[in-house]
Amino acid sequence: MIALLDLPHRMDETADRVTLALDGLLPRVQGPEAQLMSAMRYAALGGGKRLRPFYVLETGAMFGVDTSALMRVAAALECVHTYSLIHDDLPCMDDDDLRRGRPTVHKAYDEATAVLAGDGLLTFAFEILADPATHPDPNIRCTLMGKLAEAAGPRGMVGGQMMDMSADTLGDDIIAVTRMQRMKTGALISYATDAGAVMGRASDDARSALRSFSHDLGLAYQITDDILDVEGSLDAVGKAVGKDAEAGKANFVTLLGLQGAKDRVALLAEQARSHLNGFGERAIVLAASVAIVLSRTN
Amino acid sequence: MIALLDLPHRMDETADRVTLALDGLLPRVQGPEAQLMSAMRYAALGGGKRLRPFYVLETGAMFGVDTSALMRVAAALECVHTYSLIHDDLPCMDDDDLRRGRPTVHKAYDEATAVLAGDGLLTFAFEILADPATHPDPNIRCTLMGKLAEAAGPRGMVGGQMMDMSADTLGDDIIAVTRMQRMKTGALISYATDAGAVMGRASDDARSALRSFSHDLGLAYQITDDILDVEGSLDAVGKAVGKDAEAGKANFVTLLGLQGAKDRVALLAEQARSHLNGFGERAIVLAASVAIVLSRTN
Repeated sequence: MIALLDLPHRMDETADRVTLALDGLLPRVQGPEAQLMSAMRYAALGGGKRLRPFYVLETGAMFGVDTSALMRVAAALECVHTYSLIHDDLPCMDDDDLRRGRPTVHKAYDEATAVLAGDGLLTFAFEILADPATHPDPNIRCTLMGKLAEAAGPRGMVGGQMMDMSADTLGDDIIAVTRMQRMKTGALISYATDAGAVMGRASDDARSALRSFSHDLGLAYQITDDILDVEGSLDAVGKAVGKDAEAGKANFVTLLGLQGAKDRVALLAEQARSHLNGFGERAIVLAASVAIVLSRTN
Repeated sequence: MIALLDLPHRMDETADRVTLALDGLLPRVQGPEAQLMSAMRYAALGGGKRLRPFYVLETGAMFGVDTSALMRVAAALECVHTYSLIHDDLPCMDDDDLRRGRPTVHKAYDEATAVLAGDGLLTFAFEILADPATHPDPNIRCTLMGKLAEAAGPRGMVGGQMMDMSADTLGDDIIAVTRMQRMKTGALISYATDAGAVMGRASDDARSALRSFSHDLGLAYQITDDILDVEGSLDAVGKAVGKDAEAGKANFVTLLGLQGAKDRVALLAEQARSHLNGFGERAIVLAASVAIVLSRTN
């Protein structure tokens, strides 16, 4: 059993290993299209908590899946997450100049390169997953790709981002805002835990419990993000803060109040952990990760 | 044997069937994210020659593949093609207001919606392909997805578009321009003929011959496009013409001259047909399609 006090360290180590894996997988910077590869690498290798990869790896480990195979799925998922950040930061979307304390891709390069780097990372994720090195069973590779497309596509992340851009029409409706966040950020977090379970041929019950876990965790994570948007400083968060309030956008803090939002996070954290009860000791890392993920300051 | 004089009619009929298939497959327009689905449908159902789907269907037919399965692959490929047009038309890319005689997606909606509609269509293509309805053998579905990701990704279409955006650095080098076009438009056309062959479990020799066919056809098609950019009128082409010359960009007409470009098209057309010799009567539609595709006026 691992010493749980070391979990933040373990998460940092995982993040470094994911960066190394991405470095090895992403196309080299060469040829007349070098700027594309350079921008893809700038975004994908520029740090980040690697939260989604962490959950792919830890869930897969619960079911005895080979780490190198898990790492490919983790890297593919991080490519999709990175693409979504690049496109979300564009001037026509959230118009952000900073991400993880560095210029966003369209600032460091230009808008056309940012659009293409996002497109390239999204497409490349499927190139990684389709490869037999990801899993010898093509049925499992197909499930991994189909579920990723669902989670990232129009009925998942892209649909959620569209709702976020049309926030005026959402109004002050907590059900609508919850659904939007569920699609925009929750779907990929749920994919992370599901992917590990799929690769380990987990039972339907196990997959369902993990889905519930990541559902609650994802929502709590998003509420934490909204709290940071109010309480955080630019220095600590590494991106512009207070943007929702400025834009008059409803979020969990405007809807629940600051204390209400914090109470909701605590409730969801408890609920998330409870879904892991059936796994016993096997889920000890996942259970312990909740508090760490939700106590982040950036 | 079909009457070859009817081939243009057959191609039009195929185009209509592809539009119907896309209409059935694309997500409904509903919910607070309705604008996304609406924009995806506006772009994907708004006409077009459906050339790539035509080659998926005709190549698959050569190997006796079920039409409804082929139609799913054809639709997925057209989603990817449509996404590439939406993103290429963006103000930060080619900045086009018209496509197929109608306002481009960012003009009909807005830029954010155009970025997301492209993202949604690209992702949805993999959702279609991952589904067992596309092919019962998961190995074949994995190959279809992996090859599509390669053809559309950083080492294919997206890389080609990056080269096109950095055309200044390409210079007046016909080898560089040919490679750019091979990646930007050739890769998806080659995918079209390869997908039908993959689904029909064609031999390596057959796949290789079809790759050579589509390689030459794709290049001839692109040169024809450059000729139309000089000779065509806005009315006939349905999009702005003369843009390359205006931007001082090298293309096949600036590099080979107008007559030189036309001679090259004729040579490539002959060469493309010659790669089909080994298929005999089976390839009669593919062979006849070359002249029709290259005589298009838009």
